[in-house]
Amino acid sequence: MFQHRSTTTLLSLVVFLFLMAEPRRVGGAGSPSPRPAPEDAILFSRWLVNQSSYGVLATLDPLGLPFGNVMSFSDGGKGIPYFYLTTLLDPTGAYALRRPRASLTLSEYPLGFCTETNEPQWPVCAKITLSGRLRILAPNSREGVFAQDALFRDHPQLAGWPTQPERGFHFFKLVVDQIFLVNLMAPARYPNVKDYIRYNNL
Amino acid sequence: MFQHRSTTTLLSLVVFLFLMAEPRRVGGAGSPSPRPAPEDAILFSRWLVNQSSYGVLATLDPLGLPFGNVMSFSDGGKGIPYFYLTTLLDPTGAYALRRPRASLTLSEYPLGFCTETNEPQWPVCAKITLSGRLRILAPNSREGVFAQDALFRDHPQLAGWPTQPERGFHFFKLVVDQIFLVNLMAPARYPNVKDYIRYNNL
Repeated sequence: MFQHRSTTTLLSLVVFLFLMAEPRRVGGAGSPSPRPAPEDAILFSRWLVNQSSYGVLATLDPLGLPFGNVMSFSDGGKGIPYFYLTTLLDPTGAYALRRPRASLTLSEYPLGFCTETNEPQWPVCAKITLSGRLRILAPNSREGVFAQDALFRDHPQLAGWPTQPERGFHFFKLVVDQIFLVNLMAPARYPNVKDYIRYNNL
Repeated sequence: MFQHRSTTTLLSLVVFLFLMAEPRRVGGAGSPSPRPAPEDAILFSRWLVNQSSYGVLATLDPLGLPFGNVMSFSDGGKGIPYFYLTTLLDPTGAYALRRPRASLTLSEYPLGFCTETNEPQWPVCAKITLSGRLRILAPNSREGVFAQDALFRDHPQLAGWPTQPERGFHFFKLVVDQIFLVNLMAPARYPNVKDYIRYNNL
């Protein structure tokens, strides 16, 4: 009997060790997928954007100064960052209505893959910045509905937020025109945006 | 004998369960310290900055557009973000020399405390943005040495990086003039910067 219990306990221990060894994902969209070869800039960019669940969205304040703000997003599997922003209760949405230029910056660090040196600024620990324009999406447009479905699926808590007009929540997309990627011991790369958007095998 | 082994295994299991339940810190500076009451905006801001090891540093590109970039930092226990930036191999350092306005944005999410809803954009999952000016520190100045010691202690990997002039690495500080904090189901707060810097009990 003790032998049986000991074996069961040992098995549980093995399972827990395995769980601890697995990189812990922090709320990323979709299902976990293996890290692509860093040399493939397009695939790697699409993977990093798809696996991330939040990032820092930087816009310009009324004086034209940079203002970063933590925001959740979803790419809906298309590589396009969609956001659920309030234009009334948080500065970023309001800033975007006045000056749409923005950048979304993500680190691979919170995904749990930067274990070799545990150093977020080490170039092999990937970082990406998508720059472009924030555009508000009409609520019943095809893309507005797509954005809502993607965001509420990846971030179920957002679906329960109050929707009264005085909260000012709208769906936005970042229309990307530049990608900045560092994921190798090499200078930053700027993957072609059209190739990034067209990539369909994720 | 089996009974003894079973007890030992069970004990190991309990230890591992405890380790798993502990929020996993991702490279934060200093030693882990308990989450302060969110109502105390000054203490909470100092805690979040001190416990974080990296963030997104947003500057203005040559066209005046916002560009966020993942950077490690250390506050050296003083609440002041210090960075080790290259002005030659990465855009942010070069941008900062031309236009020093910048913001540093951090999320509490990667610290492992946002477990209640697992949603980075939920207001109770804290976020902070420190805005100000990036200033380069003279290498042998008192503050330059302090920044170097703090950064190399919290980010040992940086200490091994090549220091040739053609790499262009310098120590920078963010001279903070505005703090934006969201950590409650309430509008953003703007803690007083002097009180933040003066706070000494961390």
